[in-house]
Amino acid sequence: MNVFIIGIGLIGGSFAKDIKRIHPETKVFGIDNNPAHLDEAIAMNIIDAKSSYDELGKADMVIVSIPVDVLVTELPKILDAVNDDCLVFDGGSTKSLICKTLEDHPKRRNYLACHPIAGTEFSGPSAAIENLYEGKTNIICEVEKTAFKLQEKALELFRQIGMRIRYMNPKAHDKHIAYVSHLSHISSFMLGKTVIEKEKNERDIFDMAGSGFESTVRLAKSSPAMWTPIFEQNKDNVVETLKEYIQNLQEFKALLEKDDFKGVYNKMSDTNKIKEILKGIPLNKEPRN
Amino acid sequence: MNVFIIGIGLIGGSFAKDIKRIHPETKVFGIDNNPAHLDEAIAMNIIDAKSSYDELGKADMVIVSIPVDVLVTELPKILDAVNDDCLVFDGGSTKSLICKTLEDHPKRRNYLACHPIAGTEFSGPSAAIENLYEGKTNIICEVEKTAFKLQEKALELFRQIGMRIRYMNPKAHDKHIAYVSHLSHISSFMLGKTVIEKEKNERDIFDMAGSGFESTVRLAKSSPAMWTPIFEQNKDNVVETLKEYIQNLQEFKALLEKDDFKGVYNKMSDTNKIKEILKGIPLNKEPRN
Repeated sequence: MNVFIIGIGLIGGSFAKDIKRIHPETKVFGIDNNPAHLDEAIAMNIIDAKSSYDELGKADMVIVSIPVDVLVTELPKILDAVNDDCLVFDGGSTKSLICKTLEDHPKRRNYLACHPIAGTEFSGPSAAIENLYEGKTNIICEVEKTAFKLQEKALELFRQIGMRIRYMNPKAHDKHIAYVSHLSHISSFMLGKTVIEKEKNERDIFDMAGSGFESTVRLAKSSPAMWTPIFEQNKDNVVETLKEYIQNLQEFKALLEKDDFKGVYNKMSDTNKIKEILKGIPLNKEPRN
Repeated sequence: MNVFIIGIGLIGGSFAKDIKRIHPETKVFGIDNNPAHLDEAIAMNIIDAKSSYDELGKADMVIVSIPVDVLVTELPKILDAVNDDCLVFDGGSTKSLICKTLEDHPKRRNYLACHPIAGTEFSGPSAAIENLYEGKTNIICEVEKTAFKLQEKALELFRQIGMRIRYMNPKAHDKHIAYVSHLSHISSFMLGKTVIEKEKNERDIFDMAGSGFESTVRLAKSSPAMWTPIFEQNKDNVVETLKEYIQNLQEFKALLEKDDFKGVYNKMSDTNKIKEILKGIPLNKEPRN
């Protein structure tokens, strides 16, 4: 089997690692606009060879893991280049614009719209993790638009790497993911910004920070190049979540200001049920290798 | 040595575990207004015996790890009850009101105002962790007000359990800790609230949540009984941090609304330096036992 990974970073590299483990006979080709990442991926044995769009005709499977703005421009070209039996899927964190863009593409049936809910705040080939996807959710949109045989091929791979599948339409995906992922990133970035601004002349202050601070600002290490186009494509939903979040913060502040500490207690107590909800979220395991 | 732990939870219980390991001859007494916690602590061998204020006269060291509102009412009584050579220290997350309250206490020299920056979102004796304090910061306020010999006794213990010490005045402590700890808790609680409210009829949506969401809302599992009095005592600083945080979120939202994605990119990029800052924060290790 010839697998092409377009974008050899955390997501694409982690797919490559799992595929090589499960199907050692597979040849993995890498395409990336960063030559250093390609060299690194070869040195790390994540890919077997560098490649280009000219060779896409020999691909059996193409995994496209690039920022969502580039997905919109590249996926049509990638579909143009692949053969009729090739499966193409992506890992973009938005789905509406991408599905809309490919709606009338003659090879729409070769494409499966995916969002694997997995990752860390790091990027590049060195961030790739074996078994990253084990126990994680893969959201598939518009599954009915993909050729049946290629659905099967994709689901077989997702089963082998241990993912659980959820089917959704692109609009619902983009709305809900704004709450459970995109908003977390903004809250984290702005929390980091608030503290850095205040404490810029007092670096020692961070000696006072504990694991709680680390946890809430961890996502502020994420790549702006990846996240800016996500926020752009999902702007309406993200703005809506931000409004509601700001509203909740303002209400909490108002309770403090009027010394309503019973109200403060209740706001927190009502949210404690997050304990039960979080139990269902699979976390990253230590890499096996 | 007789050590009394008042409040046998995560903080007090973790001190007890370390003290028992380092000084096996120590007898650890527990005082707690929750009888179930005392029984649990005895069953887990965290304390050797239940006790009461009547026995405090035989204490060589008293560790007071109770919510900050109760610290203010209990510390004066505890100091009243101890002998002249006894060290009393606390673990409260606010320091100004506590230090102010004890300012004129006849046994002020027996008290050391501490804030060990360590913990998890869990509480109760079962949350106690051996080596919790290794590599963590302990902020000591108004050290000069504590008797020299008792400073020595405390610092020896903190050295043995691996803490690094920072000295600060209570006002500076309360101001800075609002940024690097108290604000994180509010951001996390309100993030949890925003998402739970939106998705209350669609529990399946949390299947879409990944480790990023888990990380940012982890602190929303924290105890409202512990955190409400912290926010009350540190209200002015906390309200100030919340204002700045809300302001930053509003600016980010405004950039999105006017399609200034270069601005969005820059806001995130400027905050990426949190990577360097976070490197200095010690995280919890796996418990040794």
